Order: sequence, then structure tokens, then C-alpha cells
Amino acid sequence: MKVHAYGTPDASSPLKPVQFDRPDVRSGEVAMEVLHCGVCHSDIHQARDDWGNTVWPCVPGHEIVGRVTEVGSGVKRFSVGDLVGVGCMVNSCQTCDACKSGEEQYCTGPRGATLTYNGPTAPDGTNTYGGYSTAMVVREEFCLTIPDAIEPEKAGPILCAGVTTYHPLRYHDAGPGKKVAIAGIGGLGHMAIQIAKAMGAHVTALTTSASKEKLIEELGADDVILMKDEDEVEAAEGRFDLVLSTIPYAHDVNPYLAMTAHDGTLHFVGLFMPIEELATMPMLFKRKKIMGSLIGGVKQTQEVLDFCAKHDIRPETQSIAMDEIEDAFERVKSEDVRFRHVIDMSTLRAAASQLEATTLEAPDRGMAADGGKAS
Amino acid sequence: MKVHAYGTPDASSPLKPVQFDRPDVRSGEVAMEVLHCGVCHSDIHQARDDWGNTVWPCVPGHEIVGRVTEVGSGVKRFSVGDLVGVGCMVNSCQTCDACKSGEEQYCTGPRGATLTYNGPTAPDGTNTYGGYSTAMVVREEFCLTIPDAIEPEKAGPILCAGVTTYHPLRYHDAGPGKKVAIAGIGGLGHMAIQIAKAMGAHVTALTTSASKEKLIEELGADDVILMKDEDEVEAAEGRFDLVLSTIPYAHDVNPYLAMTAHDGTLHFVGLFMPIEELATMPMLFKRKKIMGSLIGGVKQTQEVLDFCAKHDIRPETQSIAMDEIEDAFERVKSEDVRFRHVIDMSTLRAAASQLEATTLEAPDRGMAADGGKAS
Repeated sequence: MKVHAYGTPDASSPLKPVQFDRPDVRSGEVAMEVLHCGVCHSDIHQARDDWGNTVWPCVPGHEIVGRVTEVGSGVKRFSVGDLVGVGCMVNSCQTCDACKSGEEQYCTGPRGATLTYNGPTAPDGTNTYGGYSTAMVVREEFCLTIPDAIEPEKAGPILCAGVTTYHPLRYHDAGPGKKVAIAGIGGLGHMAIQIAKAMGAHVTALTTSASKEKLIEELGADDVILMKDEDEVEAAEGRFDLVLSTIPYAHDVNPYLAMTAHDGTLHFVGLFMPIEELATMPMLFKRKKIMGSLIGGVKQTQEVLDFCAKHDIRPETQSIAMDEIEDAFERVKSEDVRFRHVIDMSTLRAAASQLEATTLEAPDRGMAADGGKAS
Repeated sequence: MKVHAYGTPDASSPLKPVQFDRPDVRSGEVAMEVLHCGVCHSDIHQARDDWGNTVWPCVPGHEIVGRVTEVGSGVKRFSVGDLVGVGCMVNSCQTCDACKSGEEQYCTGPRGATLTYNGPTAPDGTNTYGGYSTAMVVREEFCLTIPDAIEPEKAGPILCAGVTTYHPLRYHDAGPGKKVAIAGIGGLGHMAIQIAKAMGAHVTALTTSASKEKLIEELGADDVILMKDEDEVEAAEGRFDLVLSTIPYAHDVNPYLAMTAHDGTLHFVGLFMPIEELATMPMLFKRKKIMGSLIGGVKQTQEVLDFCAKHDIRPETQSIAMDEIEDAFERVKSEDVRFRHVIDMSTLRAAASQLEATTLEAPDRGMAADGGKAS
């Protein structure tokens, strides 16, 4: 099927209109018209090649909400017209231990998990294109049900920002009696505050922006520490069982480790840059742990959607048109953003016939359920 | 009681003869003639102020084996003539959660754990002097029973090198089915290999010294990886459930993190210097953990003594005279050492009357069992 999208051929060009064919629905696959797609900080890092691993061209977007337009043979859980979501992955081997335990993000199959965009190219030399596009096709196992209670334009960020923070909060049993700090109050952090609070933990927000204090209070945090206030930071030494850091850029992590309790954990999601200096004394003298995790599996993605529906948790979103994407990138980079931008994909559909679009090679999405390859 | 010892007034002077009075045995305390004291890498770091926290004068030594000469009122478990040991601590609050759970090294009482030497000076402004001395006095709770099977000159290193590696191996359930790597094959590492093997784990030694390969085999390791062989290192990516690093100096930790398995742990004991650059990708993409720990509690120290007796585990030791200590320091620093030096304290006792010794202020050792202070 012919798809309109926004993408970039290299790290220095702005995102511009592109078009390509997505291989048709195969056995076990679901096709959807994309309605909304959230703008994740990772989209920017990938499009600008901040991690040095971008496969060009790059069509970002992995917080996708759509309406089912077609289902392949054997699809059981979805029908035309259903409101569905696609997160950070579209495929995986489905047979390794990680996949069988619902942690497809750690798939150890020959291709690993196929990411929604910038998907692994081995062994085919192909790429995947994400949700900054008018239509997606995805394997049924990676298709999420959007609960009725959640507005379509609010669901996208739960698929990435939501599950990425939900996973470590569950992993560390955030709940009553646990002191949890959320570091970095942006797209991920503002979801983490709400989720941790709904789990019953005592929640403190750690922020460098005094201007965010009011928003943080509205999100339900019990407490806020301004990281620029050295006295406040010092007073919080050893306070938190879990410091969940959503900060996506290189920074001094030692103050956050200092705030972590004896036997507690400083947990990173979204920090792909190396840590430049890390004190070991707190790890030895207080048996503190440092670790990280990557998004979450499909099972937990559905779980966090249902959890957000049940506990009335929503991302703070701002709708933008597709052609406003570069402005949105700039705002996110400057941190001048009230949380998540969500692209209204009807704006691209409406403009598509007038746009001058570069034609890209068709993307791949790995094996179909019956073993068939994209044609 | 008058004690002869070796100590130093500053970081640049060699260790020389000193003498001082140890406050007499109080209620609940045990006095001993020191027979042997192991030379730990920490002794060197402390005497040379490598960690910048040395309280002068410094009398090192925390791998102490002695014969009981006197017991204070209320002492139940020890009698004159018993062969006993003292490890890294001589006192703690005995009332906090850490102490009550047998992890006195993490004591949160007002003074924390009182280390055997360079003990915390708050709130008294006093210091502790270690086992490079002819006699020790220690609170009963910190006195260990040396099992009959263990030769007195072999027991000391178990009290520090032994428990420091035994603790993380127990913490991470090293045992059948677990792949454990031991990084750094010196005083700690050579104990760790033997202990992990006796626990039933598959044990790989990671070393930078090709000359140690034969010794490693003799210690019972299943495998050895020479860290200078890039192919071997690369082939071992993601292999080990636990990488226990005993390396006590600043080094590139990333190859060790790379060898750690998905959901595995890189665990540091003995690294007090900051890590200069740490890749976060392995933590995120494979949910690897980094952590550390400090020695072990008294309960586990007794446990590892008994474990070594039962499984016929001994440190490789080389006996030295007290006046050979500076040579021993140099050999340890140059890594030209077949594991642990142990000072034969009879050499100091024999020479004491002829030595010109500086007289030091009396050391402190915290509160007695009945609340009494050292006089």
C-alpha cells in the first residue's frame, strides 16, 4: 500500500515529505490507518544520529495509534475498525526465552527485536519505517488494544513513555512503603510520576527546572527536589529505594546515586550516552545498584494501557500538524515543552496530494507469522 | 597493655616500629596475642593515603589471628588459649537494622562500624590501630573462632579476602548452573575462585597476567580468559551471570560489563576509585546491573571460615617478618606476588626490645558491651 510519511536522508537535513510502499498485509498481520503518533525524544536522537547507529533514510515514530483497515489470514484478536496501537517493536522471533516470557525487547533471535523504525537490518539489509506515516502494518502479536476509556490522541505516549517507566517500576516493586524518585520530568518522567503514584509509592520528582514545580504537583508527586538546590540535594542523601532516571542526555549521575538508599537502585531508561565519571564508593559502602532497561515487552505494554485506563492516567499532550515536526523537535531539545507532542496524522493525509515527496525504497518488517517474507 | 607495632605518621614515610598502650579489656571484650596478620591491598592504600581519608598515625592490618590471653566479664564464647580471629571491624552499634541482620559493615549507628584500623573518629576524635601489632583487644561479637582444620597462618586472609568475595557470591546465589567470572587474580580473586568453585558454579578467571594461568588452574578454575587477548574477550560477550571484580585500581570496566550476561551483574569489591567512563548501552539493552559491596558481616565471616574448613580452601600465603613489610608492599603494588603475604608476629615480639619505637597515643575501639568507654 502507498504510504505518505515524513523522513530524512541524513543527520543534518530536516524531516520532509516522503512516500513509499508498505508491503501488503500477510498472514497474521494487521494494517491500520495511522491517526496519531507521539513525538519521542528518541525520534530526535535517531533522526539526528546522536547515537551513531541510524540506518538511512529515517522515518521516526513509535507511539502510534490507528484504526484497523485490514487483517491478514489467521488474525484472531483484531477486526477492521478497531482502535489499536503500535509501540517500539513490530516483530521478533517469538521463539526465544525472552519472547516466550513476554520480553520481546530482549529477543535473542537472529534479528533480535525488529524496532518500529531503524529496525535491525541483518540479515536482509533492509530498514523499518515508523509512525510518522499515514499507514502501518504490524504483526498481530505487536498490536495493542487501546482501551475505550483512553482518548485516541492520548494513547500513543503510553506505548513508549508509559511502558518504558512502567517496566522498571514493576521490576522494583514500586508500591506502598517504597520511596521512589523520578529524575527528569519530561515525556517519560511525567508518566512515571503518575504511574508510581497509582502503584502506591511515595513519589518525589527530581528536576532542574523550577518552572515545572507546579506541573509536578498537578501530576500528583508527593514532593519535589530542585537539583540546583545543593542543600535540598544533600538533605536527600540515601533517601530513595529507587531513583528512576528518565534523563536522556549526558549528565552528572553522581548526585542521583547519592540520593539512592542503601540496597537501593539508580535505574536508567533513555540514557544511551556513556557516564563520564561514576563514584564507586556509594556502591561499595551502601551496596547501591546501577542498572537500566529498554522499553518493555508487549504484554507489559498492554498492561500499562489498561493500568492507565483504570487509574485515569494520561500523558500531557499537545497536538501538532505533521509539518510542524521540526519546530516540535527544537522545542523538545530546548526542554521548552509541556511534555508530549502528538502528530495529528489527518494533517498529512489532507496535505499529501499537494506535497512534493521523495520516494523511498519499501521498508521491511521481518518474517510473517507463517514464515513468509515481505514481497 | 603495652603493644609493639608497625605504623606510619604520613603517606610518604615507610612503616616503622611504634608502641602504644591498648586500653585494658573491658566487659564483653577479648584480648589476644597476635600470631599472624595478613597483608591486604587495603593496608597499602590506607598507609599511602590513596583514598584520601587516612587518619594519622596509621597502623594497618585486619586479617588477624591470635591466641586469647584474657577475657572481660560476661564473655561467653571465648576462653584463654582459644585460637581466634579479627577481621575488618572491631565494634558497631549492635542495635540498628544492619547490625541486627548480621551486616555490621553497614551499621547506621552514630559511629557506623568501627573499622579495625583507621576507624571512624567521630564523635571522639580517636583512631583505631590494626593487627600489625603484638596484641589486640576486641569486642566479643567481633571475635571469630578459627576452625581446628585451618592452620593459624592460613586463617587471616579468610577474614578479609575470604568474606569480601564470599558475600557477593552468596548474594548472587553462585552455585550449580551459574556462570561466574572472577576478575583480578590476587589476594581476593584467588579466594573467590576457590569459594565459587566449592559452591558449584562454573568459574572463569579473568586476568591480565599470562603468568598466572597455571596457578589459576591449580586453584580449580574451569577456564581462564586473558584480558589482553581481544578475540577471547569478544567471544565471551554476555557470557557470565556474575562478574565479580576484585581489581583494586582504576581501570576500564567496560570489557567486564560486556562479558556480563543479560540480567547479570558486574559486582565490585575493592574498587574505591571512580569509574572514568561507563557505557550505559549494555545496561539498557541487556538489563545488566552494576553494584558493589564492602567486606561482609561477622556472621558471614564465621560462615566463610567454616566453609573454607569444610571445603579445604586455603589462601596461598607467604610468611614474612614484620620488618619485611615495605618489601611486601612493593611486591603487591607491582603485582609480583603469589597471593597473600602474612606477617609472622613472633618476629616483632622477638625484636621488640631492640627496636627504637615511636610512642603513639592510645587508640580507641568504641563502646564496650556495658556502655563503658575505653579509659
